[in-house]
Amino acid sequence: MNFASDNVTGAAPEILAAIAAANEGAAMPYGNDPVTKRLEAAFNGLFERTVTAFPVATGSAANVLALAVMTPPWGAIYCHPESHVNTDECGAPELFTGGAKLVPIPGKAGKIAPADFAAVLAGAGKGVVHHVQPAALSLTNETEAGTLYRPAEIAALAEIAHKNGLYVHVDGARFANAVAALGVSPAELTWRAGVDALSFGATKNGALAAEAVVFFEPKLAESFGYRRKRGGHLFSKMRFVSAQLEAYLKDDLWLRLARHANAMAKRLADGLAAIPGVELLYPVEANEIFARIPAAAITGALAEGYVFYRWQGEGDEKCRFVCAFDSKVADVDGLLASLRRHASAAARKRA
Amino acid sequence: MNFASDNVTGAAPEILAAIAAANEGAAMPYGNDPVTKRLEAAFNGLFERTVTAFPVATGSAANVLALAVMTPPWGAIYCHPESHVNTDECGAPELFTGGAKLVPIPGKAGKIAPADFAAVLAGAGKGVVHHVQPAALSLTNETEAGTLYRPAEIAALAEIAHKNGLYVHVDGARFANAVAALGVSPAELTWRAGVDALSFGATKNGALAAEAVVFFEPKLAESFGYRRKRGGHLFSKMRFVSAQLEAYLKDDLWLRLARHANAMAKRLADGLAAIPGVELLYPVEANEIFARIPAAAITGALAEGYVFYRWQGEGDEKCRFVCAFDSKVADVDGLLASLRRHASAAARKRA
Amino acid sequence: MNFASDNVTGAAPEILAAIAAANEGAAMPYGNDPVTKRLEAAFNGLFERTVTAFPVATGSAANVLALAVMTPPWGAIYCHPESHVNTDECGAPELFTGGAKLVPIPGKAGKIAPADFAAVLAGAGKGVVHHVQPAALSLTNETEAGTLYRPAEIAALAEIAHKNGLYVHVDGARFANAVAALGVSPAELTWRAGVDALSFGATKNGALAAEAVVFFEPKLAESFGYRRKRGGHLFSKMRFVSAQLEAYLKDDLWLRLARHANAMAKRLADGLAAIPGVELLYPVEANEIFARIPAAAITGALAEGYVFYRWQGEGDEKCRFVCAFDSKVADVDGLLASLRRHASAAARKRA
Amino acid sequence: MNFASDNVTGAAPEILAAIAAANEGAAMPYGNDPVTKRLEAAFNGLFERTVTAFPVATGSAANVLALAVMTPPWGAIYCHPESHVNTDECGAPELFTGGAKLVPIPGKAGKIAPADFAAVLAGAGKGVVHHVQPAALSLTNETEAGTLYRPAEIAALAEIAHKNGLYVHVDGARFANAVAALGVSPAELTWRAGVDALSFGATKNGALAAEAVVFFEPKLAESFGYRRKRGGHLFSKMRFVSAQLEAYLKDDLWLRLARHANAMAKRLADGLAAIPGVELLYPVEANEIFARIPAAAITGALAEGYVFYRWQGEGDEKCRFVCAFDSKVADVDGLLASLRRHASAAARKRA
Repeated sequence: MNFASDNVTGAAPEILAAIAAANEGAAMPYGNDPVTKRLEAAFNGLFERTVTAFPVATGSAANVLALAVMTPPWGAIYCHPESHVNTDECGAPELFTGGAKLVPIPGKAGKIAPADFAAVLAGAGKGVVHHVQPAALSLTNETEAGTLYRPAEIAALAEIAHKNGLYVHVDGARFANAVAALGVSPAELTWRAGVDALSFGATKNGALAAEAVVFFEPKLAESFGYRRKRGGHLFSKMRFVSAQLEAYLKDDLWLRLARHANAMAKRLADGLAAIPGVELLYPVEANEIFARIPAAAITGALAEGYVFYRWQGEGDEKCRFVCAFDSKVADVDGLLASLRRHASAAARKRA
Repeated sequence: MNFASDNVTGAAPEILAAIAAANEGAAMPYGNDPVTKRLEAAFNGLFERTVTAFPVATGSAANVLALAVMTPPWGAIYCHPESHVNTDECGAPELFTGGAKLVPIPGKAGKIAPADFAAVLAGAGKGVVHHVQPAALSLTNETEAGTLYRPAEIAALAEIAHKNGLYVHVDGARFANAVAALGVSPAELTWRAGVDALSFGATKNGALAAEAVVFFEPKLAESFGYRRKRGGHLFSKMRFVSAQLEAYLKDDLWLRLARHANAMAKRLADGLAAIPGVELLYPVEANEIFARIPAAAITGALAEGYVFYRWQGEGDEKCRFVCAFDSKVADVDGLLASLRRHASAAARKRA
Repeated sequence: MNFASDNVTGAAPEILAAIAAANEGAAMPYGNDPVTKRLEAAFNGLFERTVTAFPVATGSAANVLALAVMTPPWGAIYCHPESHVNTDECGAPELFTGGAKLVPIPGKAGKIAPADFAAVLAGAGKGVVHHVQPAALSLTNETEAGTLYRPAEIAALAEIAHKNGLYVHVDGARFANAVAALGVSPAELTWRAGVDALSFGATKNGALAAEAVVFFEPKLAESFGYRRKRGGHLFSKMRFVSAQLEAYLKDDLWLRLARHANAMAKRLADGLAAIPGVELLYPVEANEIFARIPAAAITGALAEGYVFYRWQGEGDEKCRFVCAFDSKVADVDGLLASLRRHASAAARKRA
Repeated sequence: MNFASDNVTGAAPEILAAIAAANEGAAMPYGNDPVTKRLEAAFNGLFERTVTAFPVATGSAANVLALAVMTPPWGAIYCHPESHVNTDECGAPELFTGGAKLVPIPGKAGKIAPADFAAVLAGAGKGVVHHVQPAALSLTNETEAGTLYRPAEIAALAEIAHKNGLYVHVDGARFANAVAALGVSPAELTWRAGVDALSFGATKNGALAAEAVVFFEPKLAESFGYRRKRGGHLFSKMRFVSAQLEAYLKDDLWLRLARHANAMAKRLADGLAAIPGVELLYPVEANEIFARIPAAAITGALAEGYVFYRWQGEGDEKCRFVCAFDSKVADVDGLLASLRRHASAAARKRA
């Protein structure tokens, strides 16, 4: 009954089993183990080319370490104002980049429009020492509004970025949900569209604590090992992180889990749309739903034990619901019934 | 047959079981879960007072986040030249402290002598803007030489530190081995002796990836939450880190595991001492052994599949052997037999 | 004929003379000299109370060092989007604060409105580890739009800041122009209105290279000496910086110079307003003028050797004109004549 | 009568005159002025090749900005333990490099021996992510012990550095004294010997506040402009810094000033050596003298108004005397007479 986030979930059984299986005798530390070796091949297969993939354990680490290799300390990183790196990292990007500046570019439904990006770059003062220098574009896909960038949209942005000497990063904390929803290949949604580095998330979709930074531009990978270590993000018993990712990729587990989450979100969105007084705020394209809900319905459902966030806190009628790999049909339907009941009771009172 | 480090080990079964047990339904993220709540009480019990303990997942993170709250960016952190923070963190302390300076104070067998510490402080230029300002003392216990600080030794150093306005940190990556070997309480070896913050290690002694930063000085804890977050070290599914620590502390598992490691090290040290041509370099007080070994014996044992480090790399006769919670008597005895055989063969040849 | 900025000027003769006068024999370095001592008293007198004032040599240094003592590395500094610290420091605030975040609050004519500030603070997530923490408000007075904050306006903003635990900084690169224009005392425009620290500029108004960071909140001054030193901003021959400031303050030289600049700007603004097709963009309250000018007039005046900036570069019709302590009536009138001539020629052509 | 340092001096008249001469009308800011343009040519001439030279105003800024372009944040900078960058910058190198580590290599009389440097590099763990990575060698010439590196000595160290992929920096706060004393060309003492970047000092030798960072390796210069700006070290009225350097170089003023300082130091050293009980601690090769002086002589001379430093503070018999461009023969002889008188009085008392 918890729709607060996909990080309130536990672990998928396959992933727990992989951790137990990795617990066999001694293995050399810091990634010099057989599981981590096998994982490299798995990522190459996944992306249909040679990539360099570095396991880490939090999404914050993945994002800020990836950005750190893309920008000098006086660089500008362009991102959506609501992006996680801009609003939810307590300054981690600034720490790891040595002080680079996140420059927000507003846009509808969590997405940056190519024309807006181009306009910002045109006025950025490239080569002028007084201004931070354009260095990277960071997109989130699935976005923080629950919407998706299509390959062609990414390609349009990446083309502008590359023409201006910037790198392109994708925060893929919910990359699985994006791939599953769009029915495209991981390659199409990343390097074929011009992405240079991807934060490939697994934690929100069934892992305990496992992400990978995947580089498609090899020279970006050169300093990553040092940066990961000095960030305190190099795990001695790396095999236990790698094992999670290996299991996650195996037999398309990651996509199966994400498809379930997306299907639950669709069921929830459809149900919400049918409740009088409820308004969906963005297209529901993957596993996150933003909706304006009558206050009485919010209060009522929360009181019955359903958990979800009022987006700006106390009193806000904008709510977020996130479905996950283990969301249950009964819980979705129960939540809908609760909201519907409280909404119509309130409507009757007003009438 | 791997004595390279205690981080080549896997996880203790009790700890794996605790992870599985924590995988029950939804739990609020970032430490707002029942396991993390219970863990707080467990740490208070362990240290016989109220402490503030923050779970993290690597020893590097524990050490550098603990140091970061103790020093301004222009501070000096005093440590042994061979300490992990000084030699093995690729600059992580400098990153997390915003550029503080590690000032090494040499000393025998991995330990800092109070007189040397006092002398360095006397010449440090306190209050003079040209010099970095004395801020913290970082001790490692069990030291990097496998030796131990006793409570009275720590108290003598802490007294000097506090008199001069410095905080005292202990890197306890192998704190369990120290407590088990000395037969003192965790309280006696820390706050009762003047320690302000402890990096309480579990990873090397049976956890997958779990450490805690324990503050005995409450005001040091104030900014820790922000620092952990912006270091990318706040885990969304924290319960899986906390569960490891809870199991680690339960029924003194941590001490049982450490006692075994220490016993294996004693067995190995006694055996080594009896091999002609082998010299133990430091007192063997816990689970690490440094010994000078005849080159032929090193080569021979490595060739038979035993794993351990030549300390300075290729060609060094100084070797390190680390015993762990799961070291096997047969492996210890096998290694001893191998070294003995190759050492005496070489001796015969020379004769 | 150069209206590009007030930093294209040289030095006032009184200030050059003071430098020569300070060149008498040996003096102890780093501020332990008689001139710097006398300067302290001069600043106390200027502000009608005990202050702590630190000479530095650039406005960038003054601003970023002042901000650095007001915020932790995970803090938020609120400022106008067009403020110098936000747009023209190439990331200096981020460097000196260890990665704090500048959060822009838009507002008319270069000024932040109290209601907007309050609204941003209300949604800032104080105490939540995921978000940078509100730490400081930085105002510019004279603003980057050439407008002025009155004491009551500053007081309204400072009250909100202090109520929420933030410090208030004023970038006073053109503080002299503000004080001269408003006819208030330095005290009224700063600490009596709630300002905690002021970057007191002199370079733009007749010094060669001299600014002072003035603290009204004593505890902010505690770490400043260390920060200035480790920023490379502690001058060994400090007397030559201090001598500039002493001469600047003596007999109200600073206000006389600023009054002249302001008067020249008024003359220029009045003349501009009378040219058909020219539009003043903001109230002209001190020594900076922003105006929309017909393209032909811009091109014509530039071709005749008048120097001023098209604000967004090539092709922009928004122009900035800055008058300075040494601007000449003849140059102002010449510029006006040139613009008028070219504007009317263009108008005739179109007709 | 002040021998505390060469930074207690004022400015040479030629340099003051140049500042006054530069005060002519408007000039574009930030180095886009005619004086700064001319200075570029002057530096090319001085070094007999094209160099890139950046004026700054403090020696701290010159050193740390130069080092910052040579090392990643996880780099190691090798230097003498007594070097200014290691002991007297309050952490400025760490701030500007983003946390690089200064690794001291001890050596006699302020100099690093090639064999010691090679040995340290051999054990540095190049390519191993756990260790900071060798990045730069920083030499001081004239050293902090008043001794000099000859071109061949620098070449031997630079060869080791370059073979291992490190850059070579020279802190030349007293570079003039070195060049004047050795009778070599600036080229021979720098790039011809393998130096990649030089902090070219002028402040201690007659300027008010002027230094230059001179790059012989062009690619090091690429990011310098951004780094200088974001360090707050880009002066708007740059012409006043450049004018000092131009006058300093003109007609070999810099060498004439330095020759005088060196000659005064020789006179003082010869006199000291003749005083019974006085011991010169290092060869006196330029303008700094370190000597052990009987306590009574120290106290006596200080009481008579002579100024010099007891090196480790209160009670130390190791004293430093620095001669400068404006030291007077009468003061040198007066100091010698005073020390001689007090030393022999004390000797008589003991007898």
